[in-house]
Amino acid sequence: MTAQIPQTEEKIRVSEIFGPTIQGEGALIGQPTVFVRTGGCDYRCTWCDTLHAVDSQYRETWTPMTAEAVFAEIKKLSGGEPLMVSLSGGNPAIQPLGPLIEIGKNKGYRFALETQGTIAQAWFAHLNILTLSPKPPSSEMKTDWAKFEECLAAANGKPQIALKIVIFDQQDYDYARQAAQRYPTLSLYLQPGNHTPPSGQNSEQHIVDMEGINARLRWLAEKVTADQWYEATVLPQLHVLIWGNRRGV
Amino acid sequence: MTAQIPQTEEKIRVSEIFGPTIQGEGALIGQPTVFVRTGGCDYRCTWCDTLHAVDSQYRETWTPMTAEAVFAEIKKLSGGEPLMVSLSGGNPAIQPLGPLIEIGKNKGYRFALETQGTIAQAWFAHLNILTLSPKPPSSEMKTDWAKFEECLAAANGKPQIALKIVIFDQQDYDYARQAAQRYPTLSLYLQPGNHTPPSGQNSEQHIVDMEGINARLRWLAEKVTADQWYEATVLPQLHVLIWGNRRGV
Repeated sequence: MTAQIPQTEEKIRVSEIFGPTIQGEGALIGQPTVFVRTGGCDYRCTWCDTLHAVDSQYRETWTPMTAEAVFAEIKKLSGGEPLMVSLSGGNPAIQPLGPLIEIGKNKGYRFALETQGTIAQAWFAHLNILTLSPKPPSSEMKTDWAKFEECLAAANGKPQIALKIVIFDQQDYDYARQAAQRYPTLSLYLQPGNHTPPSGQNSEQHIVDMEGINARLRWLAEKVTADQWYEATVLPQLHVLIWGNRRGV
Repeated sequence: MTAQIPQTEEKIRVSEIFGPTIQGEGALIGQPTVFVRTGGCDYRCTWCDTLHAVDSQYRETWTPMTAEAVFAEIKKLSGGEPLMVSLSGGNPAIQPLGPLIEIGKNKGYRFALETQGTIAQAWFAHLNILTLSPKPPSSEMKTDWAKFEECLAAANGKPQIALKIVIFDQQDYDYARQAAQRYPTLSLYLQPGNHTPPSGQNSEQHIVDMEGINARLRWLAEKVTADQWYEATVLPQLHVLIWGNRRGV
């Protein structure tokens, strides 16, 4: 009898694993979470705030890891106490995250994933919460709504689904209104953009324009209420307000 | 036949009605809301940030209004478009808010109420969300847990219930842990205190110590995660971060 040849397991390309810290954005704002940030993205948003997990010039900082190895790190960071794990990127939907979600859920961990909605995966249905964050015109990316629909179909009504849209200007705002009209049943989060994002590896040295960010938040809050857009939830990036552009928090 | 003598309707003592603005705290953070702040409170927390709705020296600024008059104002402010109404104070549980909730819900409005949990009202069961915010030791108030239980009983499992605790220091933190242990099924929100609260009528002139508030938020976020207290959601007073101590936002 010959030994069974082990199957080559697909690895997850990891940019960073950190936490627990509090989630700074969207539906889970304020909740303790461990972040798994994967490397690689099919988008190149002009204002990307995680270039170190997107641009291939940082590729050598990304580590291929098995689902078991990633979960071991999550477990270590969380002290073995189950919590919410945020799968982020780059675009984490590129990665083979199904096995990680399965291993973690068996141990009581919960999983949230945020993606722009360009790549659908069957394992979306096993998430606890899926945040779809289509990118507005200021990103200079073009939304493929057919792909977006595929993501919704893959989720198959199982996870909670949130629609989150970053807004820099009036055009973005108009885009968000149209997106919200298209999906009136999804819970909706609007987030003012950070026009002074960290840029790649020197992110911590990049000074954030707190006054400008606050001004944009006020503008958005006042616009949403003036327009009687009461279904929208307006939230800042809390971690930026608290920690600036510092990484790993 | 004699004309029916109209019953004297109990009036709501209103400190201010304002909005819509975004909710700055707790479970509804970021959601557009109209605030109805009632006048009068059975507590005198040392760090109260709404003295103008608490201290009887401001009593003459409080207006007795019928439920119909309050709702007319809500309707005007919201442009007749239903939204979440936040009933706040002072302690709004003192006031006869049942008829207002009934009138508003019939028109599609939703109602949230925040109270310290000292006075139970049968109409709690008609709220959409009830936030119980028992006050920690730094307030110098003493929690009557029997009264708190009465509030939970009055809610009768109908509204969503959140437990929200303001934290200034280690003693408050310990209090919050005990309260959370007592009610493990309630969703839990921890909020760092504002040690530079507005003081009565001159609130807008009172400079908020943003650095100090941020430091306390970082301290709390780091403590909660270090203690593996993953059920807690840590949120700031967003309106203070955005607008400082300004009133009516």
